[in-house]
Amino acid sequence: MDTKGKVYVIGIGPGNRDQMSMMALKAIESSDAIVGYKTYVNLIEDLLEGKEVTNSGMKKEVERCELAIDEAEKGKVVSIVSSGDPGVYGMAGVILELVHKRNSNIEVEVVPGITAANAAASSLGAPLMHDYAVISLSDLLTDWDVIRRRIDCAAAGDFIIALYNPRSKGRVTQIQEAREIILKHREPSTTVGIVRNAKREGEEVVVTTLEDMLKHEINMFTMVIIGNTNTYEINNMMITPRGYFK
Amino acid sequence: MDTKGKVYVIGIGPGNRDQMSMMALKAIESSDAIVGYKTYVNLIEDLLEGKEVTNSGMKKEVERCELAIDEAEKGKVVSIVSSGDPGVYGMAGVILELVHKRNSNIEVEVVPGITAANAAASSLGAPLMHDYAVISLSDLLTDWDVIRRRIDCAAAGDFIIALYNPRSKGRVTQIQEAREIILKHREPSTTVGIVRNAKREGEEVVVTTLEDMLKHEINMFTMVIIGNTNTYEINNMMITPRGYFK
Repeated sequence: MDTKGKVYVIGIGPGNRDQMSMMALKAIESSDAIVGYKTYVNLIEDLLEGKEVTNSGMKKEVERCELAIDEAEKGKVVSIVSSGDPGVYGMAGVILELVHKRNSNIEVEVVPGITAANAAASSLGAPLMHDYAVISLSDLLTDWDVIRRRIDCAAAGDFIIALYNPRSKGRVTQIQEAREIILKHREPSTTVGIVRNAKREGEEVVVTTLEDMLKHEINMFTMVIIGNTNTYEINNMMITPRGYFK
Repeated sequence: MDTKGKVYVIGIGPGNRDQMSMMALKAIESSDAIVGYKTYVNLIEDLLEGKEVTNSGMKKEVERCELAIDEAEKGKVVSIVSSGDPGVYGMAGVILELVHKRNSNIEVEVVPGITAANAAASSLGAPLMHDYAVISLSDLLTDWDVIRRRIDCAAAGDFIIALYNPRSKGRVTQIQEAREIILKHREPSTTVGIVRNAKREGEEVVVTTLEDMLKHEINMFTMVIIGNTNTYEINNMMITPRGYFK
């Protein structure tokens, strides 16, 4: 091939087209081929006319990345598309690791997006206005002991804590245990925000407390944000003061 | 007034227009008045024709927010514009706190943007692929002891650590002390990424180590990302494995 192929690793943000960056739009438009998990590819269906599109199901991350690299190695420009930011529990790392392993000479460009913690925060008000920790409760790829220790350290450090993947059908105890660990360091009255489908159709926002948080629905489309010791609720919004009004 | 005013609290992302969301663009277009720090307002100058524009200098955050609320209370739609995500060390909290204090009935909508940690990460490769902590080293509004403790907890928990406001002209020791605290928990060979002007004109990317990081220029336009114990460097990129290739 004369032309060196390229993979754009694209985050389309929370899902609502309005939250996507113009760079993501341009990269998709300039691509010959699109690879992605079908839920996300469906969200940009109207942009895909005339392009080769490969949808795939969940838990095929590595396969999808291999395919994107295969196509780029033929000289194509390929976009691999996912929600949020591809650099946060996303495809950016897998693509770069595979390119290195395969000793491939394709170009890779990571196109950042608005990640779920920041999308959910904007719907809650301003919970992430101070130092925060982002933790995934999925133990598919990470030992639960490592995750437990991180929750403990984040709670001890009075970080605001954004929990990704808090609960799925087959994984229900982690969010309970996370709450118990945090309760060792924070009051039961600590403000907690729960956002389902942040900045997507069907968004639901709940402001509650560490004590009551498990009374609300938490599933795999949910972001849970635990406030720090200064976070408070007003008018069903969650605010962490930065310190301007001491 | 018949019409209730509104404030959009807008993050335009790292600064390059391409990284801005379409929602931010639409909100600016629909506004009667724009308020912001002049560096950021200048970045969107071409969108401002026919609008009232109030620029102001640094360290006038509260004044800017008061002004935006004043204008909205007259029934106008006002955008208060800043870089990154207004929910991360930004204006979202100040606006919501002031609206509450003033018992104002204006509407507030926070429009999220790509925050500096995620923008810088995309230029480094994929450093934030696992649990991470976001910490500001600015002690203008936060006691340094609180910040020190957070750095220690984040390092103990093996979080990737994204340091905002690592150094300014008058504040040079904090990044040195942060590095020393982290060195108690991590090897000197730990991978560190330094990005100046992430996704803006004049971007500079350095991948180095905890040992050597202070040999590189770090200023107020810099994001410093400290890897976790698994983060590594290849081809001047920084990658934290998620665990797909154990």
